[in-house]
Amino acid sequence: MNEADLTRDDFLGGRITLAQPRRGYRAGIDPVLLAASVTARDGQAVLELGCGVGAAALCLAARVPGLSLTGLERDPSYAGLARRNAEANKLPLKVVEGDLANIPTDLRQRRFDLVLMNPPYYDRGRGSRAPNPMREVALGEETPLSAWIVAAARRLLPGGYLHVIQRADRLGALLAALDARAENRLGSVQVMPLLPRPGRDARLVLLRARKEGRAPLRLHAGILLHPEGEHPGDRENYTKSISSVLRDGAQLEFPR
Amino acid sequence: MNEADLTRDDFLGGRITLAQPRRGYRAGIDPVLLAASVTARDGQAVLELGCGVGAAALCLAARVPGLSLTGLERDPSYAGLARRNAEANKLPLKVVEGDLANIPTDLRQRRFDLVLMNPPYYDRGRGSRAPNPMREVALGEETPLSAWIVAAARRLLPGGYLHVIQRADRLGALLAALDARAENRLGSVQVMPLLPRPGRDARLVLLRARKEGRAPLRLHAGILLHPEGEHPGDRENYTKSISSVLRDGAQLEFPR
Repeated sequence: MNEADLTRDDFLGGRITLAQPRRGYRAGIDPVLLAASVTARDGQAVLELGCGVGAAALCLAARVPGLSLTGLERDPSYAGLARRNAEANKLPLKVVEGDLANIPTDLRQRRFDLVLMNPPYYDRGRGSRAPNPMREVALGEETPLSAWIVAAARRLLPGGYLHVIQRADRLGALLAALDARAENRLGSVQVMPLLPRPGRDARLVLLRARKEGRAPLRLHAGILLHPEGEHPGDRENYTKSISSVLRDGAQLEFPR
Repeated sequence: MNEADLTRDDFLGGRITLAQPRRGYRAGIDPVLLAASVTARDGQAVLELGCGVGAAALCLAARVPGLSLTGLERDPSYAGLARRNAEANKLPLKVVEGDLANIPTDLRQRRFDLVLMNPPYYDRGRGSRAPNPMREVALGEETPLSAWIVAAARRLLPGGYLHVIQRADRLGALLAALDARAENRLGSVQVMPLLPRPGRDARLVLLRARKEGRAPLRLHAGILLHPEGEHPGDRENYTKSISSVLRDGAQLEFPR
């Protein structure tokens, strides 16, 4: 990709800087929130499915040292940028080029403590449209959500966690995909709505599920993104807890 | 059922009084909240699947005059009590004895503007236990949630609404059942979490889906059941909006 077609953007208050395409899918707050929702510790193996330029994996690596991180990305230019971003930020992300519906052999032999994903927000069957058509191309427009879940479930160690961020209107499809195949053995689902304003519909959901987990689903009360009484256009005005995630690299823990 | 085995309980601040078994499944706030969540108008046809002693249907009838209400109940003693409760409260509920997995012929030929259900909270497959084992017997322990959804979908007119109240930990199974069968043609799903306290996990969810609806799923911010800073044991202390539902028979509208 031509250097003029790239931007360099700071994340986590400048702790990491990512090169990404000026046009097409660009990492916003979603991968940062996804990474923040993960509880991880030194020595654990982490896989991100559809890692794009590496935003979520690298945000996690910046917060938790000593992880072994792997990103799977089927678009060669995004995979290349993810590799380059890992190197430029001196963070240990290994990028594998390949399709999650047909996992490369070396990955197929590995199991992970944690799997992260931010699947594209497109559902051809329902006739909805992705906010940005390039994202579909970048992250796999023809891969149904259930294939993402199956791929994740197969790569998880017993007791390992799957973490997903998804648009709230995809919660039905997401829970259906989790519920549909008993052989996935994913349970102990936790759903965390992300609310733009007090009393307003959730815009995004963070979801965590555990391999071999048997606890009942929990629907948490939700986390507010923006404070009450904000003026329109004031989009950078986040609540304290979200601001400390986005700017200070804080964790956004799921309730125990 | 022996008169000594029955209690008479006031609902909606005494607007209706229901005879129900002293032991076994007893109507609490769930059917009242379910009925409150329904937008209905004079002349519409309403079906409640698994109506028990008729609590939800009769609460709705007490708020909205001129409805044509039918309750399906497979347990003869509950069906008998529902009939008796309708008569005693002078409300127009017709009770049909039968199983929703094998709908009686006369019901099978009818379509409704609204279908209500409060399916039993028991999932044998997951090894969970119902809070009250009698409820399983009363409302059909062996009928999977998907059968409830299929039965409801078949009875709905195009544009009609399905209303469900369910324990929050069953949200996954509920959305999976809605998502699983395209021929149900239920869409425009709205999920309203009912939160016991600020910041605490949802305990119940109200759900509405529309026959032939095509709008994306909406996850609402949720409604608080009890006010903040309550003392333990003070369970009858509800928020203003919930109190006006339970005591004054107010509606609990889904957001437009």
